[in-house]
Formats: sequence, structure tokens, C-alpha cells
Amino acid sequence: MKFAKVIGNIVCTQKDERAEGWKMLLVQPLGPNFEPKGEPMVAVDAVGAGDDEMVLICSGSSSRQTSVTKDKPCDLVIMGIIDTIEREGEVVFRKFETEGFK
Amino acid sequence: MKFAKVIGNIVCTQKDERAEGWKMLLVQPLGPNFEPKGEPMVAVDAVGAGDDEMVLICSGSSSRQTSVTKDKPCDLVIMGIIDTIEREGEVVFRKFETEGFK
Amino acid sequence: MKFAKVIGNIVCTQKDERAEGWKMLLVQPLGPNFEPKGEPMVAVDAVGAGDDEMVLICSGSSSRQTSVTKDKPCDLVIMGIIDTIEREGEVVFRKFETEGFK
Amino acid sequence: MKFAKVIGNIVCTQKDERAEGWKMLLVQPLGPNFEPKGEPMVAVDAVGAGDDEMVLICSGSSSRQTSVTKDKPCDLVIMGIIDTIEREGEVVFRKFETEGFK
Amino acid sequence: MKFAKVIGNIVCTQKDERAEGWKMLLVQPLGPNFEPKGEPMVAVDAVGAGDDEMVLICSGSSSRQTSVTKDKPCDLVIMGIIDTIEREGEVVFRKFETEGFK
Repeated sequence: MKFAKVIGNIVCTQKDERAEGWKMLLVQPLGPNFEPKGEPMVAVDAVGAGDDEMVLICSGSSSRQTSVTKDKPCDLVIMGIIDTIEREGEVVFRKFETEGFK
Repeated sequence: MKFAKVIGNIVCTQKDERAEGWKMLLVQPLGPNFEPKGEPMVAVDAVGAGDDEMVLICSGSSSRQTSVTKDKPCDLVIMGIIDTIEREGEVVFRKFETEGFK
Repeated sequence: MKFAKVIGNIVCTQKDERAEGWKMLLVQPLGPNFEPKGEPMVAVDAVGAGDDEMVLICSGSSSRQTSVTKDKPCDLVIMGIIDTIEREGEVVFRKFETEGFK
Repeated sequence: MKFAKVIGNIVCTQKDERAEGWKMLLVQPLGPNFEPKGEPMVAVDAVGAGDDEMVLICSGSSSRQTSVTKDKPCDLVIMGIIDTIEREGEVVFRKFETEGFK
Repeated sequence: MKFAKVIGNIVCTQKDERAEGWKMLLVQPLGPNFEPKGEPMVAVDAVGAGDDEMVLICSGSSSRQTSVTKDKPCDLVIMGIIDTIEREGEVVFRKFETEGFK
């Protein structure tokens, strides 16, 4: 899984029927120091994520292993919201406390 | 899912029999500011997309989860047409209004 | 699916038994203007492609959705031969006519 | 499979129900000489790995082929801990002995 | 499938139980002229490959379509040993004869 920040959302009226009811969020993949890196993508939200949260995104066929995405045309899902990240013995991210994130 | 712009179409007379009847569109993947980025690819259209529309493309095995691509040799499908993209609280794309797109 | 040009072929006497009988072609992925880009790869031919043809390659699990690759250790298949590519209203590739291709 | 070093761990209280009970480790992919390369990612631990160990990570649908990840939204799993790596006839990594690793 | 050279092997005592009995080889992906390119990876050997051989590697779910990798946490398999590569009408690689390979 990779780290991303929720930065917005998208609306698609015209879509495959199996995609009905999805909450589709705009997510920004993050680099080594949790800075934005690469293009924003669209992920289906399976956990109730919101703007400015650091989330875990799961891609490929594995993204279909949640109850909201099963057997659906989804290749990216938000399957977790990060509380803390510990790296080399130090907490480098903490929800509500790390600048730039909620 | 990723963002792409429909920029054309292709014709293949000689193709795998399971690909019969597909509408195959030429799509241009988009970068952070919705500018063209990377090579054009070919996606099967599952939603009735047209030239100059901003669409959502779904790749890999997940692209076979629509009624037109099921069990077929397809690794990229258009599964949604974007109406609006909201980013950091602002609408940054709106169908029919954003320059360069229809 | 992506664009590639058939540039040769390979021979493997010693291979997994499920790969017996394959025609394995050397394909060169193409960039934005159909110039060579990236490393040549090996694709199983499912459509009778030949040297110097512009083809569509399908990757991953989707490459196993043809009759010659089903349930086999194949991650890249040629599933179409391009006749024409229309881009922004103009035909930018036409079989037998575009220079460098057959 | 690719090489990575375990550099930390993450905590997610809010996550997909199928991800309950996972030990989620922060792993750093490694370059040609086993130096850090690319963004840290999150892998599910299937083998009891610990900080500073060199591990093998398996991605995509194959990452779901362990008893802890089966049918779950996981796209990266640690499926082995490296003892030795032999390259061009020389041992270039040995657990407990190579600097920077445990 | 992609080209790689076998450059060594690895030992993992502690590994997922489904990975027992695998011969795990260190493989170096190759660039346009069969020079080393990118990071070495670990592939399961399904064909009896040895050091300095040019092999075909198959990735993703397709790598599980051999008898030694079926239903196992494997995302890269060696499924063929190259005898010859013909490119634009010329043989550019021949086993036992091309320098740098066996």
C-alpha cells in the first residue's frame, strides 16, 4: 500500500452502472517525506476518509477486496486512515498534529 | 483510476475475436494540472465517451469489470465521464466550461 | 492497451510446458509520436502479426484472455493489428502508408 | 519479488474490516547496491519480520497468496526474510553481518 | 515478458510456507541493447535456469501460471531460457555465443 493525502473529490454522472454509489475522492500520492509526488488519482473511499487526511491506498485487483468495490471497475481504494507512522524509532506522522494534514 | 482526455480513435480489423464490437478510443493521460503527460493509450469505451471529454480510466484486471469488457483481453477501460473535480475546496474542472475540454 | 511495433522474434527451446506452441514476437513500445520508446519486450502473438506492423499490446492478467494464452504464464499479448489511428480529427497512422511501418 | 528494508511501522485504527489484525510495516525499497531507492511503502508482514531486516516483498494479486492476506485488500506483502544474497559468485549480503541491516 | 540475466541467487530460511522448495534466483533486467538496466529482482525459477543465462521473466498474476508457482506468493517467474533473438532481420543474441552471457 502507498501513502496519499485526500485533496478533493470528483463527480461523474455518466459512469459504469457498477460504479453507482461510490464516493470518489481525489488523492495525491506522497513522496519520501510525505510531500506531494506524482499525479493526483481517483480512489474509491471504503473507510470514510475526508479532506486533508493521510490515507493508505491499495491498487490493482486487491482494491476490489472491500465490500464497496467487490466485482466492480475499481483499481484504487482507500482502505485505511493513518494514525501514526513510526520510522527508524521516531514518530514522523501523527494524525491531527502533523502540519499540512488533518 | 486516472484522468485522461479522449483525443481520437483507432480501427483494428484484425483482432482477437473477443474484442469484436469494441469502441476503442485514443486517450491521453493527464498530469497534475490536467496537461497531457505520457504516451497516448487505447481504452475500451464503456460509457459513451466522446472527443475532448475528460474521462476516468481504470486499468488492469479491474478494467474487465464492465459488461463490455468482461472476460476479454482488455487492460484499460473508460468507466466514467468527469463532470466536476474539486481540489482543496475549489472546482478546478467543470465539463463544458474548462478550456481545452468539451 | 498500448502501441508497439513488431521488430523481430525469439526462440526458447527450454520453457515452461504451458508456453509450448507460442509464437513469441519482439515488440518495441512506442512514444507519443510512434517513435521507439523504452525496452523491447516479448509478446505472444494472438492475431497473426508480422514484422514492422503496428500492433496493440495488452498486459497483465488481461493478456491471458485469448484462446492461445488462457491459463498460461503470459503477461503480454498482441491482440490487434492497427489499421488507422485518428487523433484530433486527423488520421495520423494508416497501415501500409505510414513510413517505417508495414 | 523485490528487496526492501523494514524501517518502521504504521497504525490505522480506522480501516477496512478485512484488514483487522494485520501487522503493517513501513518498508523502504532498495536500489542496485541495496541503498534506499524510491518511496517507502506499507507491507503486511506474513513472516515475522523486524526493524532493519532485509526482506522480500511481493506485490499485486500475488501478495494475497499468504494465509494472513488471502481475499483481503492487500497489494504488498513481506513473504521472506533474506539470509544471503549471492551475486556473480560473491556473497554481497549476509544477515547480521552486512552494515546497515540487522 | 521481459529480458533478464541470471546473476546470482538468494537464500531465505524464514519465509511463507507456500514458498518452500523454490529456487530463487537474482535476475538483472536488461535495457534496449541487453545491458543491465534497473534494480536486480528475485524470480522463481520454473525452467532450470543458471548463472549468466538470458531468460524471459513473466510478472504479476501470470507468474503464478506454472506448476511450481501455482497459488503461491510469487510475482516474478523465469519461464523461458532464450536461445536466439532476431531483431530487424538479424540475430542479435545467440546462446553460448553472445559475449557476457552463457
